[in-house]
Amino acid sequence: MTPRRPLNRPVHVSWRVRPQLRHGEGERQHLTSLQGLAALSLDALSSVAYGPEAIALILVAAGGAAIGYTLPITLAIVVLLTVLVISYRQVIAVYPNGGGSYAVAKSDLGERVSLLAAAALIVDYVLTVAVSLAAGAASLASAFPVLAPHLLAICLVGLALLTAVNLYGIAESARVLMLPTALFVVSVLGVVVLGLARSHPAAVVGAPMHVPVTDTLGVLLILKAFSSGCSALTGVEAIANGVPMFREPRVARAQRTELLLGALLGTMLVGLALLIHRDRVQPRHDVTVLAQLTAGAYGTGWVYYATNLVVTLALALAANTSFGGLPVLLSLLARDNRLPHLFALRTERPVHRYGVVAVAAAAAVILIAVDARTHRLIPMFAIGVFIGFTISQVGLVRHWATLRPPRWLGRALLNGTGALLTAGATLVLLTTKFLEGAWVVAIVIPLLILLFARIERYYTAVEKQLGVGRTPPRPTRPAAVAEAGKVIIIPVSDVTTRTERAVSAGLALGGEVVVVAVCFTEEEVHDLRTRWNLWDPGVRLEILDSPQHTVVRPVLDYIRQVADTGKWVAVLIPTVEPRHFRHRVLHNQRDLFLMVVLREHTDVLVCLLPFRINT
Amino acid sequence: MTPRRPLNRPVHVSWRVRPQLRHGEGERQHLTSLQGLAALSLDALSSVAYGPEAIALILVAAGGAAIGYTLPITLAIVVLLTVLVISYRQVIAVYPNGGGSYAVAKSDLGERVSLLAAAALIVDYVLTVAVSLAAGAASLASAFPVLAPHLLAICLVGLALLTAVNLYGIAESARVLMLPTALFVVSVLGVVVLGLARSHPAAVVGAPMHVPVTDTLGVLLILKAFSSGCSALTGVEAIANGVPMFREPRVARAQRTELLLGALLGTMLVGLALLIHRDRVQPRHDVTVLAQLTAGAYGTGWVYYATNLVVTLALALAANTSFGGLPVLLSLLARDNRLPHLFALRTERPVHRYGVVAVAAAAAVILIAVDARTHRLIPMFAIGVFIGFTISQVGLVRHWATLRPPRWLGRALLNGTGALLTAGATLVLLTTKFLEGAWVVAIVIPLLILLFARIERYYTAVEKQLGVGRTPPRPTRPAAVAEAGKVIIIPVSDVTTRTERAVSAGLALGGEVVVVAVCFTEEEVHDLRTRWNLWDPGVRLEILDSPQHTVVRPVLDYIRQVADTGKWVAVLIPTVEPRHFRHRVLHNQRDLFLMVVLREHTDVLVCLLPFRINT
Repeated sequence: MTPRRPLNRPVHVSWRVRPQLRHGEGERQHLTSLQGLAALSLDALSSVAYGPEAIALILVAAGGAAIGYTLPITLAIVVLLTVLVISYRQVIAVYPNGGGSYAVAKSDLGERVSLLAAAALIVDYVLTVAVSLAAGAASLASAFPVLAPHLLAICLVGLALLTAVNLYGIAESARVLMLPTALFVVSVLGVVVLGLARSHPAAVVGAPMHVPVTDTLGVLLILKAFSSGCSALTGVEAIANGVPMFREPRVARAQRTELLLGALLGTMLVGLALLIHRDRVQPRHDVTVLAQLTAGAYGTGWVYYATNLVVTLALALAANTSFGGLPVLLSLLARDNRLPHLFALRTERPVHRYGVVAVAAAAAVILIAVDARTHRLIPMFAIGVFIGFTISQVGLVRHWATLRPPRWLGRALLNGTGALLTAGATLVLLTTKFLEGAWVVAIVIPLLILLFARIERYYTAVEKQLGVGRTPPRPTRPAAVAEAGKVIIIPVSDVTTRTERAVSAGLALGGEVVVVAVCFTEEEVHDLRTRWNLWDPGVRLEILDSPQHTVVRPVLDYIRQVADTGKWVAVLIPTVEPRHFRHRVLHNQRDLFLMVVLREHTDVLVCLLPFRINT
Repeated sequence: MTPRRPLNRPVHVSWRVRPQLRHGEGERQHLTSLQGLAALSLDALSSVAYGPEAIALILVAAGGAAIGYTLPITLAIVVLLTVLVISYRQVIAVYPNGGGSYAVAKSDLGERVSLLAAAALIVDYVLTVAVSLAAGAASLASAFPVLAPHLLAICLVGLALLTAVNLYGIAESARVLMLPTALFVVSVLGVVVLGLARSHPAAVVGAPMHVPVTDTLGVLLILKAFSSGCSALTGVEAIANGVPMFREPRVARAQRTELLLGALLGTMLVGLALLIHRDRVQPRHDVTVLAQLTAGAYGTGWVYYATNLVVTLALALAANTSFGGLPVLLSLLARDNRLPHLFALRTERPVHRYGVVAVAAAAAVILIAVDARTHRLIPMFAIGVFIGFTISQVGLVRHWATLRPPRWLGRALLNGTGALLTAGATLVLLTTKFLEGAWVVAIVIPLLILLFARIERYYTAVEKQLGVGRTPPRPTRPAAVAEAGKVIIIPVSDVTTRTERAVSAGLALGGEVVVVAVCFTEEEVHDLRTRWNLWDPGVRLEILDSPQHTVVRPVLDYIRQVADTGKWVAVLIPTVEPRHFRHRVLHNQRDLFLMVVLREHTDVLVCLLPFRINT
């Protein structure tokens, strides 16, 4: 039983959408532009919590003065953002069914690229969960310094909560996300406006960190800072993936939301960079850069605490979005024969249990490996996202070049430029950060692709052997079986009510019924034969000798011997079903062992007859 | 399938015997008295490696001078030994089938006492393994001080080796044990004779240990030292348990061997005590008392190393004997319905795999808990053995009082005295060592008894429900089934060769064949119906709706519904059998899950049809 979509049926399901919208209930509550912003942009917007800090952390290695380069680097990133937003508005128009880079690659760039897209997406999702949790923990610890030594513990508790929520399958709604998103945007914009309005910071938090000057300010360092800052662009693709969630006119609304996201994200990034630039903000002990800017704008009163909590909440919700998204992607891959079909299984609540557990395990491993330090995750991060950006845009270029609609050349040029920029950024990310962690991604993505390919090859072979898609031959007629001879073999150990039930079932199946028992001594043989004759059930009893004192081997040999004569054989195994699970250990599982052995070594039909114990 | 001995058939198998003798091959090679000594006494004899040391370790807490009390305490222990030897010579005569305290209690003292005996024996066996290994490691480290910090590691490696040997099922033979036993006895007697011949020790090894004087020499301390020394008496019962292994005249030979064991053990104990007494030998760092005496007698040349190795070997072989013995006891308990029947299973080599693993796990836990320190095991040790001594002798008293043979009163008096002495010793052991570790035994033994009782109650209920021992009713005739209606339900997911095989098998079973499939969408229903009609196998297809997107639930509901109409139902589940185990994860195990659910919730016959994948 492997019920799944056949290979040739295209799948166009978007997987960055909320659970309750995925399962057909969404028609009632499609999103407006603003709701869409709440539902789909938290991942992108919340990255201002770690993006600017990632830039500052790199630059500070060349001395405090180098912090001034934060602003031009941020401007370069905002240029990239602009290109991405324009490009993704086209993606929205061309792929109104959503689906992200995996779907785009599958439909326009072929199987191979789609494997790359899938691997990149998996890496991206898992890292988004880890980075968001780590940054959220850092934000929480900025407000409550007592938590600073326990970042990993906070992350793991958060991860456990997310896992529980996602296993339980609570449907997030856009409405619920509206408030945290609005609070987040207002808080961060407030930091920017109030901060810029003051001539100097309202308060300074955290102990100064002595960072040894280990680097000189050169092209490499700037490229490194740029690639770290690119982590702020992750999540920009989410709206394009979720177009089907919007209210009609879908495309226009989604495009408007994308624009809104770009404008908000750009403004926040530039604003925060201006503040960093002016106040020469440097990373300090146990306090994030965003928290420093918050203190600088609001002082250290209750607003400071509230803002940090809002940031933590936004990051946690961003982690949850990815947590919800990856299992859906895994299930799509499973339906496409590229991951075990297990991942496509859903429990009664629409939850992909195996996917959720897989994401949780992967994120936990990563968080433990980097001790929940955001800055150690940044070098791995964004590569996956930028591969996705590039694939989507290349797909679009191919699309324009194939269909050649009006103004296709201009559009292709635009997307081509975007693709070149993001491909370039991918290369910069990979090369400048290779030793710091990007190598992990460089190993994991090819391994994932290899895994997908091997799994697909296996499933294809299985489908061929099963004859999927072909009409099978006619079933064998019972008359043919009757002619060859039909034997029901029942292994038993003694003469009890259970034996009677098994013999009755065997007689019901028809054909010749043979009861077999294994005896170790002459005395046992005699005993059993006597009791059998006393009972006289009217079927044949075969007593097997077992020189090796095993039960399974002689039974298996006997069954094989009968099957080898060309007869049609069914083996009927009486089993015991205790009421309580703990009582299972009290029944030797020889019945199940025999079943496993028969399945492995013979082609006979194995029938299990349960005998229920009530105690 | 739970083939086992019915409750009412008495079991008289001895379990301290060697594997190859247990399984009927022993008739050829029964033992002479000397061979019997080699085969059965190593456990007892090797306890001189830790018994005297245990006494000294207690006494030294009252200052160096208190060591002088070693001799009188040892003499008291030797008196106890004499009573035990005389008593066990009677046990040998009365129970020539061997069997130890469990069998004695079962035949003469009733079920309850036999449970106590069994629990005590289990504790004894496991502790013998742990103590022998720990003492063996200490002996090895005495010769090679570099090993001293790694006692636990040595024990665990030793335990792993024993486990492997016992899982593999190498048959120990008395012949193989002759040489190590002889070497051990000669070495230790040599230590005594040469040591006493010298006016002062030939060499002193080990660094002095500063033991703070924490205790005063009083009755309590002497009782404590006595109870520690009683550990030297463990193993005295082994010969009586193994009487069937002796050559005719069995009883006479076994009695002679018991006498020989008593003489040797008594001589060694007294001799070593004399040396300890004369040289005021105290425990020293990383060197056992026996090793100190060895150095005192032989000097520190090669003989010293050789003797320590011989002692280590003897202790390892003693551990192995218990390792081999406990699984046999567990299997006897399993046959008596007091432990899971699992423990009565044997692999093709006559090995009780589960028992061996259980012993290894228990010994490992104990060794780790006490960090492989012999002196921390001593307080737990001997209690189990002394309970066994007491039970055996009380059984004998009951035996004499019931049968009243000639001179029965004298014999009963002798055994009664023995029983009183060992019962007193048990109380002393338990009370003086309670806080140091005896409490563990005081908790474990009642828990084991409770476990045996609950397991027995369950099995008895099962036997009643199965109607064990009664002749079952006549099997239902097929005509009755045919009249009620016979339905074969085949759950499938699509139309493939596997479906064809399943339908063919269903038709072969006879009756009405119904194929059921679960579809989630109208499109899927249409698709499946079309392909089915194209195939036209001549059986009915039922398409089930699944609002919850699960496959198992609607199939289960359908099957229950059919079964509720009173029809005779078999469910035929087509399964996939991949060639490689790793490919199993690629097949969702819904077939097996359905099987489990059906076994749990219905009484239908569940048939599995394997479809083999060759890739």
